[in-house]
Amino acid sequence: MMTGNEGKVTLVSAGPGDLDLLTLKAAKVLASADVVLLDDLVNPEIVTLAPQARVIRVGKRGGCRSTPQAFIERLMQRYARRGLHVVRVKGGDALLFGRAGEELAALRRAGVTVEIVNGVSSAFAAAAGLGVSLTHRDHCQGVIFVTAHLRDHSEPDWQALAATGMTLAIYMGMSRIESLCATLVDALPTATPAAVVQWAGSANERRVTGTLGAIAAHARAAGLGSPAIILVGNAIGEAASFAISPASFGVHSREASIEDLRRRA
Amino acid sequence: MMTGNEGKVTLVSAGPGDLDLLTLKAAKVLASADVVLLDDLVNPEIVTLAPQARVIRVGKRGGCRSTPQAFIERLMQRYARRGLHVVRVKGGDALLFGRAGEELAALRRAGVTVEIVNGVSSAFAAAAGLGVSLTHRDHCQGVIFVTAHLRDHSEPDWQALAATGMTLAIYMGMSRIESLCATLVDALPTATPAAVVQWAGSANERRVTGTLGAIAAHARAAGLGSPAIILVGNAIGEAASFAISPASFGVHSREASIEDLRRRA
Repeated sequence: MMTGNEGKVTLVSAGPGDLDLLTLKAAKVLASADVVLLDDLVNPEIVTLAPQARVIRVGKRGGCRSTPQAFIERLMQRYARRGLHVVRVKGGDALLFGRAGEELAALRRAGVTVEIVNGVSSAFAAAAGLGVSLTHRDHCQGVIFVTAHLRDHSEPDWQALAATGMTLAIYMGMSRIESLCATLVDALPTATPAAVVQWAGSANERRVTGTLGAIAAHARAAGLGSPAIILVGNAIGEAASFAISPASFGVHSREASIEDLRRRA
Repeated sequence: MMTGNEGKVTLVSAGPGDLDLLTLKAAKVLASADVVLLDDLVNPEIVTLAPQARVIRVGKRGGCRSTPQAFIERLMQRYARRGLHVVRVKGGDALLFGRAGEELAALRRAGVTVEIVNGVSSAFAAAAGLGVSLTHRDHCQGVIFVTAHLRDHSEPDWQALAATGMTLAIYMGMSRIESLCATLVDALPTATPAAVVQWAGSANERRVTGTLGAIAAHARAAGLGSPAIILVGNAIGEAASFAISPASFGVHSREASIEDLRRRA
């Protein structure tokens, strides 16, 4: 427990699932936590790194009943004001989607000291599993991280995004993958390489690769659902699974990935 | 040393500089390395995590004399074929810029087993220093990571990128920050919040915040140069330094950031 009234909140990025993908700093912060607030997409085993802490689960998964955001914010403030070190754990990197912006603003308004520890966002883990760079310079100038789940239930301007020629890394898109890919096909060739990676960077990782025109059907056929990352762009065509057989749409488990990366002569 | 002919290459992401921002997995891989190939933007102290390894520095910083890419690729293959565990260390996340795509392709062609360990890319560290989400949902639907340093010396279509309304995280843009901001101003209000963060996520981190119209001059006046991340977008306006004084363009060291985040009542 911290002394006096020197409580604080640390926003810790839990990465994509595998506890080995936490940063050294995140592990140190967890070890000193008095209270841990855990999102429901975070690997629950992370609590083993915070043996002294009181753990509070505050999942707010899209579409489900969940702890209201305002309550989470009040909880953090209350414990910090008691002089405790509150560690708020979010999946991936806390600063990409996941409403850290709102929590930071609320904590600042309340005068609570807050620190941030970065982590690995799941699109990076998805690319690692596929064995591709997100930005191979033969193919693109960058990558767009976009959420398909907008506050007002509108859609991002998929065609404008596709027209940039950049790799698209689409978060929270599985519930509408068919319509999303159908819209992208208006701006990109149907043969554009694509991939869907569920539970990227965790022991349960599963993925399919294919063309933009076919990826939605293949992902559904393979039973892939949320949480998943959808990757679209020519850079994704560098994945070993395309090199082995451009027409194949196999499902790959995480264990297969190293073998995938061996050269097929 | 590995037995028989079971050599391999692991591409390890070193993160933005602070060794505490390495993943636990990266630290474990380094501890088992026989040979470490180090880029010159990586914190040189990382070699303390690979005490048994032979260390080879293969910097290839833009514009400087450097080790040719083909030589780096041959070196990795040669050591892996001798049955050694080669760890290729790249700054940030190896899969965002940094030519991992070419190295992966060369290793595959040579039949060398390769694994990838993710890390924290410097734009995430820049956002952490500023205390902002890259994607506050009041402001945007995502973030674009783009390099200003293109192979053919052309420019990305800045106006198309700006028109998406997403946060822009611009890598390798400091040598042309004036022209880049001047082009962005054709598509975005001059008052759009912006920041420049040099050596994000390292002990030397320095940053300025301001408007898109003024940020280039402020960054130059503060003496900021490469390597730096340029962030542009309304989400960046949530940084505490804007809240304190929207008109201020102070230079902030890393140490100031926690204080910045305390509420000014």
